[in-house]
Amino acid sequence: MEIYLIRHGIAEERQPEIKDEERSLTKEGRQKTEKVAQRIKKLGLEFNIIVTSPLVRARQTAEILVAAELSNAWEESTHLAPNGNIDSWLNYWLTPKNYPQNTQIALVGHEPDLSSWAEILLLGEVKHSLVLKKAGMIGIKLPEIGSPLGNSQMFWLTPPKYLL
Amino acid sequence: MEIYLIRHGIAEERQPEIKDEERSLTKEGRQKTEKVAQRIKKLGLEFNIIVTSPLVRARQTAEILVAAELSNAWEESTHLAPNGNIDSWLNYWLTPKNYPQNTQIALVGHEPDLSSWAEILLLGEVKHSLVLKKAGMIGIKLPEIGSPLGNSQMFWLTPPKYLL
Repeated sequence: MEIYLIRHGIAEERQPEIKDEERSLTKEGRQKTEKVAQRIKKLGLEFNIIVTSPLVRARQTAEILVAAELSNAWEESTHLAPNGNIDSWLNYWLTPKNYPQNTQIALVGHEPDLSSWAEILLLGEVKHSLVLKKAGMIGIKLPEIGSPLGNSQMFWLTPPKYLL
Repeated sequence: MEIYLIRHGIAEERQPEIKDEERSLTKEGRQKTEKVAQRIKKLGLEFNIIVTSPLVRARQTAEILVAAELSNAWEESTHLAPNGNIDSWLNYWLTPKNYPQNTQIALVGHEPDLSSWAEILLLGEVKHSLVLKKAGMIGIKLPEIGSPLGNSQMFWLTPPKYLL
């Protein structure tokens, strides 16, 4: 199984009058994310499902991926909101679904959570060794047997600038 | 400083009548590596120097990168031959050169050495958590101060298929 961790695009700055969860992608953030989505599509990637953080900037990013026909299915998950826990996502979201081995799942969320999730999958612990830019992505292959924690492998990490 | 670890392209199979160090890139390996080099150039990357393993398949890969004008300077280093040691490379090759902070160095070599070197830079130890395909590459940023071992960050890991 392959997991693609995708960070939301560039969003409005934090400001007192907008709730953090309501911040939208900027025009630049939207355009860049659209280009990234089109490039990913051109590379031949498709996802069985896109799961997104419920925050507006993540949801808008997921909508752009869906509009580029990278998946027919998408849903929100609170596991992907800031400070979400990968153990909870694995145990309460992924495991019950019993997906086949060749499933490709995109997760749209936030930093530093996504790169921490990647490190927990690869190494079993957080080392702060990965740089994941806005609209960038990480590709991870889970093992066929056994816990993915500390036993997964990374085959892709890219900033958006190399996908434009 | 940024280090780009580049694995040689697809080479001839091992066979009794050819020494391992003499194995050449295949036609497919050459063509794929040329496409990767052209794409990297288009992405705006350039290296201050390309350092290559002395083995034929690595040297031919470096020659393709030079032909794509990714660098004006290149040299061989036995540190990059199979089973080369990153500590030796850092202490006896990199440190004495005293390069400025913004230097970008490409290292052309072999697996499993390159992904091990990456993990030693990121984590201080080898975890076998990275997949580096032939003609694929890893981009790592070294810290400005202190030992790079366990203190570097990865910003790029790509298989060649996403650079064609």
